[in-house]
Amino acid sequence: MTLAPWRSAIARAIDRNRSLVYARYLQLATVQANGRPANRTLVFRGFLEDTNQLKFITDSRSAKADYIQQQPWAEVCWYFPNTREQFRINGCLTLVSGDDSHQDLQPARIDIWQELSDAARLQFAWPHPGKPRVQELEAFEPPAPDPVQPVPNFCLLLLDPVQVDHLELRGEPQNRKFYRRDENQEWFCEEINP
Amino acid sequence: MTLAPWRSAIARAIDRNRSLVYARYLQLATVQANGRPANRTLVFRGFLEDTNQLKFITDSRSAKADYIQQQPWAEVCWYFPNTREQFRINGCLTLVSGDDSHQDLQPARIDIWQELSDAARLQFAWPHPGKPRVQELEAFEPPAPDPVQPVPNFCLLLLDPVQVDHLELRGEPQNRKFYRRDENQEWFCEEINP
Repeated sequence: MTLAPWRSAIARAIDRNRSLVYARYLQLATVQANGRPANRTLVFRGFLEDTNQLKFITDSRSAKADYIQQQPWAEVCWYFPNTREQFRINGCLTLVSGDDSHQDLQPARIDIWQELSDAARLQFAWPHPGKPRVQELEAFEPPAPDPVQPVPNFCLLLLDPVQVDHLELRGEPQNRKFYRRDENQEWFCEEINP
Repeated sequence: MTLAPWRSAIARAIDRNRSLVYARYLQLATVQANGRPANRTLVFRGFLEDTNQLKFITDSRSAKADYIQQQPWAEVCWYFPNTREQFRINGCLTLVSGDDSHQDLQPARIDIWQELSDAARLQFAWPHPGKPRVQELEAFEPPAPDPVQPVPNFCLLLLDPVQVDHLELRGEPQNRKFYRRDENQEWFCEEINP
């Protein structure tokens, strides 16, 4: 596989914004079962090896895990404060849970679980997200999950981009490039007006 | 009208993050005509007077202006880096352009145009956004638009929230509140699991 032509721009943005921990946070928009959009902040966890797919993690008990199955299209909006640039990445999601589907992606799911901090792993043993608050503090101090074998509700979430809109606010006047993948998996790039 | 109960939390977040100019940037998710989500960064421009509606500006020539008319539902994701908290604001959009609709909102549209910087106003006189790049630099140095009377393609965009999900990552363990407006326009708040 070849790196998509927008990968170098993302790598440069990550590098130039590395002083800000939250430069690795981005917003993922999906469509709910009722046809309305949903939008939340996720942490970018790198690219899946030998692909152009972005990696995230999520909990299969969260609302988004439900409707991703029905409507897998998503758009990431990723703003980099230091360099004042934005990437809008539109593509299709794959949810890799602990069940038997996506056997080929289980090693990637297990790897990312093992790379997490203890605190991050612990959240997957917390009470059901989005349900009425469990008031007992002990519910949020469960025994530490196995650091080797992921809990069943831990999911790897992959975004496979089909188009990327890159806007640089610092240009003169501004620069904007639009990348698109065609049916032959080839990427094309066009300069467009900001 | 009464301030919605989540307004004080937003006001506090804005105040505590005021050292970061980009703490007023947020991501707006909408649904395109093809049913796929779109997501982009916008600048928060305050609340419409005597309402709980968030104000933004946009160009009627941009893609989102088209499909907002068909699918007005949207979700804002607003992350505040200093205080490590997130607001997800779901609601309905109103696009106030220079045409005859929304006569009652024209004063608000004109006010926000007059408050813009010269540089911000100039962008509405640039070539059509999203079209193939106009290479002549002069196209991006047009005569300054009238600072009093907005150009026809300048739009005020309003988001009228119906639910707000507020997550504080810094809580112990974390705090999350879910606000919902009912048919009688009354707001209810519930604590939920993070």
